[in-house]
Amino acid sequence: MTTKPNGQTDPKRRIFDAAAALFVNKGYSAIGVREIAKEAGVNIAMINYYFGGKGGILRDILDESYQKYYHAQASAGDDSTPPEERVRKLISNVVAFFRENTEVALIAFNSMLFDVPEIEAIKEKWGKMNFSLMNGLFSQMGVNLSDQVHTSIYNGFLGGMIKNHFQQRYTWENLTDEQKSKITHGEDMIATKFNFDDLFYERFTDLLVNQYFHGVIYATQKDKMKYGPK
Amino acid sequence: MTTKPNGQTDPKRRIFDAAAALFVNKGYSAIGVREIAKEAGVNIAMINYYFGGKGGILRDILDESYQKYYHAQASAGDDSTPPEERVRKLISNVVAFFRENTEVALIAFNSMLFDVPEIEAIKEKWGKMNFSLMNGLFSQMGVNLSDQVHTSIYNGFLGGMIKNHFQQRYTWENLTDEQKSKITHGEDMIATKFNFDDLFYERFTDLLVNQYFHGVIYATQKDKMKYGPK
Repeated sequence: MTTKPNGQTDPKRRIFDAAAALFVNKGYSAIGVREIAKEAGVNIAMINYYFGGKGGILRDILDESYQKYYHAQASAGDDSTPPEERVRKLISNVVAFFRENTEVALIAFNSMLFDVPEIEAIKEKWGKMNFSLMNGLFSQMGVNLSDQVHTSIYNGFLGGMIKNHFQQRYTWENLTDEQKSKITHGEDMIATKFNFDDLFYERFTDLLVNQYFHGVIYATQKDKMKYGPK
Repeated sequence: MTTKPNGQTDPKRRIFDAAAALFVNKGYSAIGVREIAKEAGVNIAMINYYFGGKGGILRDILDESYQKYYHAQASAGDDSTPPEERVRKLISNVVAFFRENTEVALIAFNSMLFDVPEIEAIKEKWGKMNFSLMNGLFSQMGVNLSDQVHTSIYNGFLGGMIKNHFQQRYTWENLTDEQKSKITHGEDMIATKFNFDDLFYERFTDLLVNQYFHGVIYATQKDKMKYGPK
């Protein structure tokens, strides 16, 4: 967050942060510029000045999120890195990305929007870059992204798993005490006693690496044996 | 769908179906009763008469969806069924549930709503029943749902995986040609040439069973060896 010398946050960043909090809680479609302006303590003209409208804020949120997510994946290694090591670094980096950027990450992973022209170029750019990046790792593990069954299961698998955890955590942590008190089932699943610290994420990462890497190798081999190479 | 002798669909079912299509596409919060009434070709008074309002429609949609989902899981066996066989039947049944009830299934899996009083009782009822049902299978595989790391990964894992596929498929199939033409990346991932037939879902189920079952057994054993029993 950019803070001005007098302690006031930059209005552009205030708009960005207010919109992110509203989008993540209620969804992009349910929020209007009026609500964002009120929450950020600015007038609507300022939103138009900085972002050109609601779609422009979403574009900047997605661009920031995709850029960081791409970096998390790219810094896990390349096609010369042993695949299990690369998967471990990848999961560890993506978990760190979600911990540090929960709101923008959840917005990016939940925004399957096809009617916002402002975000088309951003989605295309990062989509292509991610595809090239991950294609190599998938080949190393026997996953063929042009096979419709493989891609239906493995495209988005890891990101989806990690997102699910952070979505549940975020939703739980943002409930009011009254809302929490009404949840009488599943209290062991997202319990208040949960402590999402470094040790939690170390075990979480280990378990996910083993579940994913071992499972992929086994499942793709079995698939090839039963249905032939694709 | 209930059809009257004269070929006209029952207005209650028309409201239910229209609301389901709107909720799944735009989300519950973004939709008003006026829009539902228009789409169903009824007046708002009729929605109030049959459902008591928007929350009442959601309650009925969730109840139908949870009931079928529970049945899909329950008919996969019990704690005396060998776990791999139970996982195979479970995945196969849940895939069939999603194929036959895509819209209500996606609504149920996407509705993390905590401010709709009408749905509280339904969520609690099915949440408790599902928890008891799955707890036994998890124990058979070495997963302990009161361990915060295990539950963060495995609670909702399978349903989430299967949901992701149907969400992508549904979103893709409901795009206009113009929207599809703008997607220049990822065309191999959800391609028009994809054929979601019985053979596709047979391979999909096999791959998911092997990925999941083998991965769980391996990952929970490794976790126990490294961090001790929980």
